Order: sequence, then C-alpha cells, then structure tokens
Amino acid sequence: MNKTDRLYKKEGTVINVHGKKIGGNHLGIIAGPCSVESEAQIIEVAKSVKASGANFLRGGAFKPRTSPYTFQGLALEGLNLLKTAKQETGLSIVTELTSTQYLDLFVEEVDVIQIGARNMQNFDLLSAVGKTKTPILLKRGLSATIDEWLMAAEYIMNGGNENVILCERGIRTFERATRYTLDIQAIPVLKKRTHLPIMIDPSHAGGYSYLVEPMAKAALVAGADGMMIEVHNDPQNAWSDGEQSLNPVEFKSLMDKVKILAQLEGRKNAENIS
Amino acid sequence: MNKTDRLYKKEGTVINVHGKKIGGNHLGIIAGPCSVESEAQIIEVAKSVKASGANFLRGGAFKPRTSPYTFQGLALEGLNLLKTAKQETGLSIVTELTSTQYLDLFVEEVDVIQIGARNMQNFDLLSAVGKTKTPILLKRGLSATIDEWLMAAEYIMNGGNENVILCERGIRTFERATRYTLDIQAIPVLKKRTHLPIMIDPSHAGGYSYLVEPMAKAALVAGADGMMIEVHNDPQNAWSDGEQSLNPVEFKSLMDKVKILAQLEGRKNAENIS
Amino acid sequence: MNKTDRLYKKEGTVINVHGKKIGGNHLGIIAGPCSVESEAQIIEVAKSVKASGANFLRGGAFKPRTSPYTFQGLALEGLNLLKTAKQETGLSIVTELTSTQYLDLFVEEVDVIQIGARNMQNFDLLSAVGKTKTPILLKRGLSATIDEWLMAAEYIMNGGNENVILCERGIRTFERATRYTLDIQAIPVLKKRTHLPIMIDPSHAGGYSYLVEPMAKAALVAGADGMMIEVHNDPQNAWSDGEQSLNPVEFKSLMDKVKILAQLEGRKNAENIS
Amino acid sequence: MNKTDRLYKKEGTVINVHGKKIGGNHLGIIAGPCSVESEAQIIEVAKSVKASGANFLRGGAFKPRTSPYTFQGLALEGLNLLKTAKQETGLSIVTELTSTQYLDLFVEEVDVIQIGARNMQNFDLLSAVGKTKTPILLKRGLSATIDEWLMAAEYIMNGGNENVILCERGIRTFERATRYTLDIQAIPVLKKRTHLPIMIDPSHAGGYSYLVEPMAKAALVAGADGMMIEVHNDPQNAWSDGEQSLNPVEFKSLMDKVKILAQLEGRKNAENIS
Repeated sequence: MNKTDRLYKKEGTVINVHGKKIGGNHLGIIAGPCSVESEAQIIEVAKSVKASGANFLRGGAFKPRTSPYTFQGLALEGLNLLKTAKQETGLSIVTELTSTQYLDLFVEEVDVIQIGARNMQNFDLLSAVGKTKTPILLKRGLSATIDEWLMAAEYIMNGGNENVILCERGIRTFERATRYTLDIQAIPVLKKRTHLPIMIDPSHAGGYSYLVEPMAKAALVAGADGMMIEVHNDPQNAWSDGEQSLNPVEFKSLMDKVKILAQLEGRKNAENIS
Repeated sequence: MNKTDRLYKKEGTVINVHGKKIGGNHLGIIAGPCSVESEAQIIEVAKSVKASGANFLRGGAFKPRTSPYTFQGLALEGLNLLKTAKQETGLSIVTELTSTQYLDLFVEEVDVIQIGARNMQNFDLLSAVGKTKTPILLKRGLSATIDEWLMAAEYIMNGGNENVILCERGIRTFERATRYTLDIQAIPVLKKRTHLPIMIDPSHAGGYSYLVEPMAKAALVAGADGMMIEVHNDPQNAWSDGEQSLNPVEFKSLMDKVKILAQLEGRKNAENIS
Repeated sequence: MNKTDRLYKKEGTVINVHGKKIGGNHLGIIAGPCSVESEAQIIEVAKSVKASGANFLRGGAFKPRTSPYTFQGLALEGLNLLKTAKQETGLSIVTELTSTQYLDLFVEEVDVIQIGARNMQNFDLLSAVGKTKTPILLKRGLSATIDEWLMAAEYIMNGGNENVILCERGIRTFERATRYTLDIQAIPVLKKRTHLPIMIDPSHAGGYSYLVEPMAKAALVAGADGMMIEVHNDPQNAWSDGEQSLNPVEFKSLMDKVKILAQLEGRKNAENIS
Repeated sequence: MNKTDRLYKKEGTVINVHGKKIGGNHLGIIAGPCSVESEAQIIEVAKSVKASGANFLRGGAFKPRTSPYTFQGLALEGLNLLKTAKQETGLSIVTELTSTQYLDLFVEEVDVIQIGARNMQNFDLLSAVGKTKTPILLKRGLSATIDEWLMAAEYIMNGGNENVILCERGIRTFERATRYTLDIQAIPVLKKRTHLPIMIDPSHAGGYSYLVEPMAKAALVAGADGMMIEVHNDPQNAWSDGEQSLNPVEFKSLMDKVKILAQLEGRKNAENIS
C-alpha cells in the first residue's frame, strides 16, 4: 500500500511543529512576504501577521525565478533574517529549499521546509528531504496531476519522513485573467485519497491581491487544513510578487473572516485567529 | 462601453423571475435531474428539492450529448413534464435550448432558458435569445476564457435582452481525477468585471457527487449568486449523469450547510433554504 | 459499429467534389481570404491561388466572431461574391455555415460546407447538414478531444451524409507564443481510427503567417490529405486575420514546396500544384 | 541582450561533439533505449542504430520516474555500460543527469548531458551544468512556455556554457489519445527567437511507436535540427516505455525516410543516414 494512501493512516496526519499543529482539526496559517528583503521588513511583517493569528512565518531566501537576471533572494542572509524574526515573534519558519547543498543548514534552522512547484518532481531533492525528520510543505507542480503529486509525496515518505503537507497553488490552464487556475476541487479529492493535510496558496494562484480573500474562504469551507498567504508591509514596493500580496490591514481583515469560517468548520485553534 | 461591463449598471443586475430573484442579495438555488425521465420522477424530485429550499427546477428535455447514439432527452414530452412539475410545485423552470427551432415554445413555457457550454459560441442561438425577454442562463464554454464568455453574454444583451445569468461549470484541463476543473476564481474575477449575476454548477464540473457539497460551499463564500445542483430520486438508475447527482437526502444536507453560509454572506432569502 | 470507424469503410473515404477529390491519394488545397470583402478582392485572390495549384476557394461570408461588435461578414452578399469567383475561376467553394436558417441556400450554392470550431458540438447544426448530400468540412473544436470530434462527425454521418472531411485547426493550451497549438499528432491518430480524410488549417492554428509554411509541410508528411490556407491580396489591410494570411507570392512559394513533398508522398494531383 | 536571443549569435549555434555536429546544416540523430538494461542490450541497440545512421546513443542510467516504486535505472552501472557501448561503436553518449552529485562523473564520461523535462526549472542543476563545457540537451518542461524554456537555457548559458540544444518532447494538454501533445509549432517559433539548435523527441511525446515516424518526418520539414528516438531490441519486454519504442527494423525504415527529407532540406550529413 502506498504510504500516502488514505488507508495507510486511519486518522488524518497531524503535523506537529513545536506544538503548532496542521491537520486534523488544526488550521495552519502561514503568512509573510514573497521574499525576505531586510531585517526591518521581515520583523515588521512577522509581528503584524502574528497579531492577526498567523502561526507560521513564510519568506523566500532562496528564490527560484524564471529568469536568471531577476532577484534571486538574499540566500543565507535571508535565512538569518528569518531566524531573527522567529526569535522576535515565536513564529515558526517556512522557507523554500532549492538545492541539497543547503539541506543540513535547513534542517537545523528551518521549521518547515518548502519544496516549490518547479521542484515537485526533482526526485533527488525529494529523496534527500525524505531522509530528514523536518516537516515538508510540498507544493503541487504547475501541471502535475493529483496522482503525480501524491507520488512525489511518496518519494519523501518512502525515505522515512512522513511529515508531509500538500499545498495547492494553482495549475496552468488556458485562462489568462488569472496567473494560474486554483484547483479547489483538489482539496476534497485529496481528502478522499490521502491522510496528509492539504493547504492552499491563493496568492500565487490568482496573482492578484483581490482574489486572495474569496479564494482563502473558499478553500477553507472546501476542507483545506490551512493557507499560505503573501503579506508585505508595502506591497507596491515589494521586490517580487507585490501585485498578489496583502498588506497587514488586508490580512487582518481576511483573518477576521477566516476566524468565523474556521469556527463553523470546527477548527480548534480558530479562537486564536484575527 | 460593453453592456456586460461593471460600469454599465452601477448596481449588480438582479434577475427577477416571477418574483424569485437571482443576484444582489438574492441566492438562486436551481435543482433537479440531469434529464427529465418520467412524470413520476420529475414531480418527486421537484417536490423534494422545493422542500429543501430550491426556488428553481432544472431538468433536461433536449440533451446535447457527445454521441448521437446515447439518450437525447424526451424533447417536447420532457418540456410538458417540466410544465406539470411547475404546476404541482410552483417552482420556476430552467431548461436548455439547443435549437432556434423551439425558441417560441421555450419563450412561452420556460422561465429561464439555459444555453449550454457547447453552444456558448453558437452566435446564431445567442442572437436569437437576445431578442426575447426571457432570462438566460449562459454556461461557460469548456475552454472559453472569461473574456470570450463575457462577449457571448454581450451577443445576448446586444439584442436587447439584459437578463443574463452566467454559470461556471468547470473548464477543461489536464487533470483527470475530476471531469472538469471548477474555476472558482472566475467568480471574483467576474464580480470585478461585470454586473451580471454568476452561478456555479458543481455537479457537471467535478463529475462525482462527493465533490458537490464542498464545491457549492466554496462557490458561495467566494461570492456566487447561486448554484445549480443535479438531484435525482434514484441516482444509481439515472438515465444520464447519475454519478454526479445527489439524492434528495444529500441535497437536504447540502441545503442545511448552504443556509448557514448564505446567512453569513448576507443573502436575503437564506431563511427559506433547508 | 460507428460510421466513422476505420473498419466501417475498408478503404479511406475519398470526397469527390465535382471531380476534385480529397482523400486517398488526392490532396485538397483550399485557399482564400478569411473574409470575403469585395468582388475585386475575392476574384483577385481566387485567380492567384488557382494559378498556384489550389483546387478550392475559401472565404468567409458568415463570420462567427468573438465580439458582436466586430465585422460579421458580408453574409448573403459574400455568398454571391464567392459564386462570381467560382464562375470566373472554376474553383469549388468552401464556406462556413453558422445557422440552419441558410442551409437550403448553402446546399444550392456551396460545394463544401464548413462547420467551424465553435459549432463542432452544435448538434442541431450537425444533424441538419447530415441530412444533405453536400460534403462537410468539420473543424475540430478548440478543446475537443479526438473522440469527441469523431462523435461530432458521427452526428453528420448518422443523418446519411458520409461526405465528411475532418480539419485540425489548433487546440487551446497554455502556450501563448502561438494562437493555438497545432496538434499534428492528431493526423496519424485519426488515420488509425477513421477512414475519413483529414486536413489541416495552419493559418488559424499559429496565428502568424511565418508559421504557415513549416506547419503545412509538417502536416503533409505526417499524412494530411490536404490543407486550408488563408491567402489575402493585401494582408496588412485585411478586414480580419491579416496577421496570419499569406500574400499570393508567399502562397506560390509554399505551393512550390508542397508540390515536392506531395510527389514524395505519392499524391496523384501533385503535378497540378505550384 | 539575452544570450539565447537570435541576435546574440548571428549564425545559428552549431554544437560540435568530437566532430559530430548538431545545428546549422547538421542533423543530430540520437537513438537508443529508454533505459540501459544490460551490456548485451545496449551494445546490440547501439550497433543497430549506428548502422542505420544514428550518430549519438541515448540510454537512461538515472531515471526520474513518477513513482518511487518503479525501476529507477541502473545508475552508475548503466553509465559504465554506456561507456562500453561507446567504445564498441564510436557513438557519442547522451544521458540524463538528475543530481549535481554526479556532475563531475558525467562531465568526464558523457558527451551530451540531458536535463529532463521534470528538471527544466531545477535552477540549481541548470546553474551547475552551466559551469561545465559539456553540451547540454535541455528538454522542455511538461507545461513550460517557450519563454520559460528559453529562460532555463539562459541559466545554463549565463554560467558560461553556451553549448545548449533545446529538445521539444510534448506538452501537457487535455487530449488523451496521446501521452502528450507534440508542439511542432515550437520549432519555427524557436528558429525565429533563438540561435540554439532544436531537436524533437517524438517517442515520449506520443507514447506510441506508430506515431514516431510521422512526427519525426513532420519535425524535420518544420526545421528541427535533429531527433531523439527510442529504439529497443525487444520493445515488448522493455523495462520502461516499451510501447513507444521502435525496434531496429522500424528504426532503419524511419531512417530511410529521414534521409530523403534531410537531403531535401539541405542537411549535410544526410548521406550518412539509413
């Protein structure tokens, strides 16, 4: 039997990150900027998203960008800034690993390692993180079928690391009004097929900030175990992906609505939100 | 300025069908079988969906089927059975028109004329219904962009009929775990671009009954003005699309959840649901 | 057995249009402007494409356009101009029917009736042309699977009209460098599954004139029984689709290359080309 | 200016692999099995494809497979077998690198390093091979736009390695009659935009051996600088991808046809084929 299979673990997997849980009745709220830009920026954002109910801080240090000539992230410096923000706020850190070269460092410093959409079938990287015990947030590939996505998770679990969170972030279709098409149907399909928790990233999917709130709400009532939201203190001047980022006030407003729906859906940590 | 444009009508269009409204703060709940099969069937389904809060009855009389050798609908007899069900229940009727040949009859007998996905760019048919005053439910083409869809609505409105309801029913993508990919992001995109009401058909999109409830809920909180749900008194023996149909008990259960979310979203007719 | 099935007719269907054949070892070369614009234009184009080896003249009289506010074709006047061009040149006429309203007229005046991509599943129209004896050029829908396309042909054949030519014209994908993705693989797939002749429309598929020659050549060696090429006497001032139209000199140059490959592929009428 | 840009190198790039050229007027013919299985197998295939005109031998040693539970390749042993086949036949070797871990070994042993579709945006791997001088065969991602593909090549060239060959291998679409949709239009689009040579892999694209010949021919006349063909001595018993592999007799037959078209297209090494 595949390790991702619904029947492999009778009860849904709950990922426990130093006491913060994702899955089961626990909602994960990951928020933060696309890229870590400076100490002031990441700390400001971290404090504001924590105040609104986020329990995880995201921020890109190593950025896989389509062009080699655009900003590639602050790399190790970005990782250090995330660490500082963690010390200041107590938020756990989620950030993307793009190379096995930094795996040991990530295992030491990062709470949840993100594998990005473009590396979803980088089997070398999947196998490597499968040998660690760090929780892995595995984003769906741009045109990966649900079956292929589960098989990618299988690569990680097969190595011994069963702490995998799936994250839908939009698939590539013909539609051009949005950056990608958010496949919300994938949530109930996955709930049927696997015991792994499933999150949603409405920021990258739509590509525009006005789409984040309706899609985050939609994903929540469709059964998502959490969401990953891009929040920037000054979206108009963000170094990357500003168009799809919420500012702290918009994020607070989103969390107010998320709280109500989370309560309705019986999520235990709903009272900490907003 | 295009007649579908958000700025063409400052306030969102509300479609008024003999007092039943769709749009603004009014939710349209259309339910019924894929195909009208018999008097007993359509009346049984009509009564049960009305009891759970539906305000419109759907049922296919003229069925556009991929193969010419599968059941094509009861045609005129089906239309008569819908009329009988309307007399019995007071529900307004929604059914698909596939040919201008029956337009006059539809105008006389049908409350909302559906234009199906496969005819979304049948400009001849669009122009013809554009000359009537009957409300039109315009389904999105299988691979129509949002821009093309709005232009199809423009064909109808340009003829003088401004009573158009848009209905998202899933788009064609590479994913094979579901019949189509339901594009819920289309709802907020359309809310920004047009004043027309937008409904969702989660039954055809997913192709499996277990997907209907999570997707109907998702669409509702994302801003949809209504939903079209396939309900059959005996899904396992349905003449078409049984796999995606709810039975009356499942529909009642869905309406219980819809009611709560509809109240939360400020829909005026929420109290009549469930 | 389906009438489109390879086994239904042991030898490939050859469509005979007043002595001009498409299918078997006969290549159909359909050329002409996107829209009929004037008598001078259509006659000039007709003479030039005939001189280069085309045996059919195309030209849109009834144009299905995405927006109701763009040029919709000259309608009946356009049909008359095609007739004039036919009298002048002896070329057979191919033009699109979008409504059953004009069916009788088309049967009388037109040599090959085109059903466009947007009407591929307009089953009402398919059934109507299925009751005639006029050869039908059935374009593939924008996102129709090969199975659905064959079923659309089945609607026509089921009515009694077995003179169906399939025409691949590009499918909708995520790629944005071209208007559509020309599915050349569809040619050998269809050759395996059906006895019907298959043509290719590289003009609409790519959307740019520089793509026409390489794609026409590719389709030919992949087994296509013909091609439909947009040619305009003055592409830069065409009323529609100028960007993808060849001028007469470019068409002549294309035919020079087509001739060589047609001979190589054993097409009998190759010597009349170029 | 981007290094992939057409204007960056006035004349098309010609990749020179120990005297065997790809690009300009030189056609690259890469053939061999999906996976290296044994010494007997790889040597038998190598000899037969060489006899028919191939100038490069392909064979997977490290196989990126969707499932972790299917055959993953013979790894280092496979690499050694390829080396043996090279010594026996003089064919240059093309094989896929999936991890930077083996980069030094590949640089030493392999003539052309393949980067597979699933790693097209594994920027870590792209940057690593960009620092070598070994020619790189860069396959297009399953849903990569042409722009993104060129940007992936840019990552390699930006590191100093300008020996990049692009290889179209089919894109993911809704069509299910073939494994992927071979985007032959990409060839002329790339010819316009870049100076890099472009090859085609019809075996993976279609997924069935009967599609290989028509598609290889189509690609050739559309301007491809070469082709990569899966050939197995015993396709029915292949350890992977047997359904799409040609046997040596079929490959010889393909080369007979390729030779004629290559001569027609003015490819200098055409006389060595078949």
